[in-house]
Amino acid sequence: MTTFKRGEVRVLSHTSKVLQGNALGDPATRDLYCYLPAGYEGSSERYPVVYWLSGFTGSGRMMFNFDPWAESIDRRLNRLIGSGAMPPCICVLPDCFTRLGGSQYADSSATGNYETYIVEELVPFVDERLRTKPSRDHRGVNGKSSGGYGALRLAMRHPEIFGALASHAGDAYFAYCYLPDFPKFLAGIERAGGVEAFMRSFDTLLKKTKEAMDVLNILAMAACYSPDPAAPMGIGLPIRIPGGEIRGDVWARWEQNDPVHMAREHAQALRSMKKIYLDAGLHDEFNLHVGARIFCSRLAELKIPYIYEEFDDGHMGIVYRYDRSFTELAKALA
Amino acid sequence: MTTFKRGEVRVLSHTSKVLQGNALGDPATRDLYCYLPAGYEGSSERYPVVYWLSGFTGSGRMMFNFDPWAESIDRRLNRLIGSGAMPPCICVLPDCFTRLGGSQYADSSATGNYETYIVEELVPFVDERLRTKPSRDHRGVNGKSSGGYGALRLAMRHPEIFGALASHAGDAYFAYCYLPDFPKFLAGIERAGGVEAFMRSFDTLLKKTKEAMDVLNILAMAACYSPDPAAPMGIGLPIRIPGGEIRGDVWARWEQNDPVHMAREHAQALRSMKKIYLDAGLHDEFNLHVGARIFCSRLAELKIPYIYEEFDDGHMGIVYRYDRSFTELAKALA
Amino acid sequence: MTTFKRGEVRVLSHTSKVLQGNALGDPATRDLYCYLPAGYEGSSERYPVVYWLSGFTGSGRMMFNFDPWAESIDRRLNRLIGSGAMPPCICVLPDCFTRLGGSQYADSSATGNYETYIVEELVPFVDERLRTKPSRDHRGVNGKSSGGYGALRLAMRHPEIFGALASHAGDAYFAYCYLPDFPKFLAGIERAGGVEAFMRSFDTLLKKTKEAMDVLNILAMAACYSPDPAAPMGIGLPIRIPGGEIRGDVWARWEQNDPVHMAREHAQALRSMKKIYLDAGLHDEFNLHVGARIFCSRLAELKIPYIYEEFDDGHMGIVYRYDRSFTELAKALA
Amino acid sequence: MTTFKRGEVRVLSHTSKVLQGNALGDPATRDLYCYLPAGYEGSSERYPVVYWLSGFTGSGRMMFNFDPWAESIDRRLNRLIGSGAMPPCICVLPDCFTRLGGSQYADSSATGNYETYIVEELVPFVDERLRTKPSRDHRGVNGKSSGGYGALRLAMRHPEIFGALASHAGDAYFAYCYLPDFPKFLAGIERAGGVEAFMRSFDTLLKKTKEAMDVLNILAMAACYSPDPAAPMGIGLPIRIPGGEIRGDVWARWEQNDPVHMAREHAQALRSMKKIYLDAGLHDEFNLHVGARIFCSRLAELKIPYIYEEFDDGHMGIVYRYDRSFTELAKALA
Repeated sequence: MTTFKRGEVRVLSHTSKVLQGNALGDPATRDLYCYLPAGYEGSSERYPVVYWLSGFTGSGRMMFNFDPWAESIDRRLNRLIGSGAMPPCICVLPDCFTRLGGSQYADSSATGNYETYIVEELVPFVDERLRTKPSRDHRGVNGKSSGGYGALRLAMRHPEIFGALASHAGDAYFAYCYLPDFPKFLAGIERAGGVEAFMRSFDTLLKKTKEAMDVLNILAMAACYSPDPAAPMGIGLPIRIPGGEIRGDVWARWEQNDPVHMAREHAQALRSMKKIYLDAGLHDEFNLHVGARIFCSRLAELKIPYIYEEFDDGHMGIVYRYDRSFTELAKALA
Repeated sequence: MTTFKRGEVRVLSHTSKVLQGNALGDPATRDLYCYLPAGYEGSSERYPVVYWLSGFTGSGRMMFNFDPWAESIDRRLNRLIGSGAMPPCICVLPDCFTRLGGSQYADSSATGNYETYIVEELVPFVDERLRTKPSRDHRGVNGKSSGGYGALRLAMRHPEIFGALASHAGDAYFAYCYLPDFPKFLAGIERAGGVEAFMRSFDTLLKKTKEAMDVLNILAMAACYSPDPAAPMGIGLPIRIPGGEIRGDVWARWEQNDPVHMAREHAQALRSMKKIYLDAGLHDEFNLHVGARIFCSRLAELKIPYIYEEFDDGHMGIVYRYDRSFTELAKALA
Repeated sequence: MTTFKRGEVRVLSHTSKVLQGNALGDPATRDLYCYLPAGYEGSSERYPVVYWLSGFTGSGRMMFNFDPWAESIDRRLNRLIGSGAMPPCICVLPDCFTRLGGSQYADSSATGNYETYIVEELVPFVDERLRTKPSRDHRGVNGKSSGGYGALRLAMRHPEIFGALASHAGDAYFAYCYLPDFPKFLAGIERAGGVEAFMRSFDTLLKKTKEAMDVLNILAMAACYSPDPAAPMGIGLPIRIPGGEIRGDVWARWEQNDPVHMAREHAQALRSMKKIYLDAGLHDEFNLHVGARIFCSRLAELKIPYIYEEFDDGHMGIVYRYDRSFTELAKALA
Repeated sequence: MTTFKRGEVRVLSHTSKVLQGNALGDPATRDLYCYLPAGYEGSSERYPVVYWLSGFTGSGRMMFNFDPWAESIDRRLNRLIGSGAMPPCICVLPDCFTRLGGSQYADSSATGNYETYIVEELVPFVDERLRTKPSRDHRGVNGKSSGGYGALRLAMRHPEIFGALASHAGDAYFAYCYLPDFPKFLAGIERAGGVEAFMRSFDTLLKKTKEAMDVLNILAMAACYSPDPAAPMGIGLPIRIPGGEIRGDVWARWEQNDPVHMAREHAQALRSMKKIYLDAGLHDEFNLHVGARIFCSRLAELKIPYIYEEFDDGHMGIVYRYDRSFTELAKALA
């Protein structure tokens, strides 16, 4: 086993203005995990930056968890950089976790303004504290699952901030990745006796069961895509309860947040990317390989270049794929 | 164990005109299984008739299969009639099976005109051969799953033929019962190399696997709801292949066949029913309990009376529920 | 689709002496389904006979159930004989079903003497009523799952009656096929409140769930392999309840009934077989392919010839394999 | 949300003599994670110690992984101690991970002498480096799954070292927790082409699949319970390959390592424990609740007091149960 020079994990503390008083009562002061490549300390070099956005229920810190058989993000970057597979870069791993499990990296009255938080607060904060190359041409965004969605969203909507993007199995084509779970959501909310009762019960669950997580996931997406101050918890639900029928008006709001829908509108931004890297497992349990294919067909229509790779696996446990995205991004942003 | 007087199972042979030369090459001459109640033979009494429509992959004959722990349809009716739980009736069990597994009891250039077959051929044929009470007030239609769908469809579209309807977990609200399987359908058709290649392979499969059946099901629905003479096998697919994106125009044709959509248009017919009985398991794997609830909400809006029962079970193995529908229908049609 | 000459299905009624007053109250008079090959009627020829033993929860009659995509036993034999793949034979399909789901074709004070029933009653009865070649050299036994077990058992213990045997995934090597379900059995019996309470509840279950069937299966095996007049329902259980620990003395009785154990003792009988055909799916959910391999290794040790085929499937839905066993047996017995 | 005083996580480095040159090439120098309660620093007090043994594939370090919805071990102990639920204690979390996923905390020529490593090396090392109460009356051992097994094993075999024990779903009654996976093990080893080929392939798997882990688990158990220098990798397998038959001699060695078997032999040690706490989920997928019950029945026979709790959950994700064991141990060892 080869040993590579170890980068540094620096944990910055940041207090957000835009998250103050957020609807869910989540903290405004959060740890910001940053990976600095070997050689950063003791030099004055500036580095490109990749923002890593975690999936639903995750946050930057989790990427450093220990697993004897899977590399943590720092060990992975040590190896990729140390072996010469990719040029050195800084990696910033925000915490956008909420009481609902995540934020989709969007602004919402029901969760908080996490899109603004990253774009207007964290990016300048990082550029001030760390020796970054502080321009969109040297700043990329990457993520998996809901984090891949975040990468697509932030790059499309903020091309002045991000100059390259990568997404592993990012949420896309909501009719396949979310809609099939609406009946489970209906059952879960009815069983609990409403949205607020569900959340009170969820908060105190000793164990967050699969069943509960399926319900939470749809609820969190609704909080991010269709906030509605008039509704319980400020969350506009995509289905009628009771009944279960899809609410066309709410669903239309969801679709406006679907990368597949957003692509045409943000063609200019996408075209400006120095690199677009996408992949998904061909057995993705949320059908995100199909979402990725459809997103790619939009790019193809628009004649925007991209890399898309499909691999023989599902949605979970695909950290070994991250080599590909980091390598592609770091090269494009160097 | 009580023994009840046994009715007779009479198998008529019928040669259809409308099924001649159907697109799939399925036979036009078929056995028509009919249950005649005890007392039919040796009397001159006339009886109401319930048409039983089998689910996908089934046909009338299968309802007589032997299972040591589940009553066949004739034993069930012997018991219900013999015990006085319901008045005697004739039960007619058509065979609308096709190479694709079923017909949804609809007319389609891709399968055959099974709706016309029942309404214009079988009903007069039965009224001629058997001592029925030959009027819509004494003729009902019942079924499970795709057969429940057929019952809803035939009663809504032919109230002059059928005066009462029952549906166990009938296909309804297609966004929940079919759409979630589109990604599997995509995978299956791509793997096979197209619709025709899939069917050639399916026909010769020694064992019809769950995986293959999931694909066949969507293909059969497309054949029934969106035939398209210009497409392979004459079947307009609801998704683009490759890609997987939902085709809005085709999906709109599907929705026109959705009982939830048809209800308002056929309010008059529904209102004329002497009985509407619906049920579904609250864990129905195809979410047909949600479909049933939404259909019921349409009936409620239209102020049409109905019975809806939800029970603690899934979609399969719910033959014990048939007591309810037959009893309700036979009473209403007596 | 080629059409083959159709044999006749003749249903004989037989009243057993040995089943009179059996412990479970199951009927002594039963239908005996017999397949007579095309040409039987209107000739005076004599035919070899294959006894087909159904699996747990099955009986001869079920082999004639209609399934649009799977041949019933009579259609299968019509095709095999009609195409010349095998010489004509009679097939006799006994009913050894019990309240517990089956009998393992063994004599037991807890179920009934089904081994004696077949060997001493049905065989002479058939030879008297049908134009069989009434000798062991022209009489074989075949079956699937518990029926395969029955075939192994009867051929080993009654070589004077049967001269050839076939077994599809027959129960063997009980440590792999039954023991892993003991904890489920424990849970089920404890939940019900004992063996008798379990059976009372089982008898009235509207739907025989997978969970209930797993419990019934072990209970039935105990009734067949370790009857104990002193125990509830006369069934010696293989585990202590409560607790769950395996009872060594009872387990030893089970092992004496294990084909893998019986093989050496009955080497002479096995050696006298004109044909031994075995197969199993390599994904058999009850590990019966491993049981089959171990049984084969016994045959190999004893230098007894056999055919063993392993195929890429599981335990269920493997009727298409029956072509092999019938063909091999009919040739050997012709 | 209440905040509690935070203890310290101190990571000691220890170089083992007994692990030098172990058969699998695993490191002899390892990090030893230690939790020191709030107040340790800046006082001269001595504390009882609980050794925490991780489950298969785990090590002490993993207990500190971040999960937004599940407490890491330090946060858990901070809360339990800070709230007064239990007296303060030190918690030591050894790393006994191996290339095979674990060691069962046993000495084995095929893995390494991990039992000796803990008992003769780590315990004195900890007592020297940390302000422990260095006697068996103030030293306990706790663990989950294979770690629960380790706790049972070490307490029974080294009562002079450990004065109290706790086990959450510890491996016990091997006929139920391991034997049912033997057929999967057989399939996996055969597919790979032998033990060595399996391990070469496993080492390089990008993703350790469930299928691979099932095979590894049995292989690791064999390495721990039945090492055999003459066999490939020095591991005596419990089944014949090919074939799959259980090897009675090897199985007997496994049973000697089964807590259920060891209990009587080590009755004296068990009786000397100041506390025995056991629990398991009543849906434990490895049937470890049954193993626990049988172990308890041994204790009951021997009239040794114990606490046994069964809860409504399975084997995974039961960290919330650790409150019970730590509380009971800390009180007994205070």
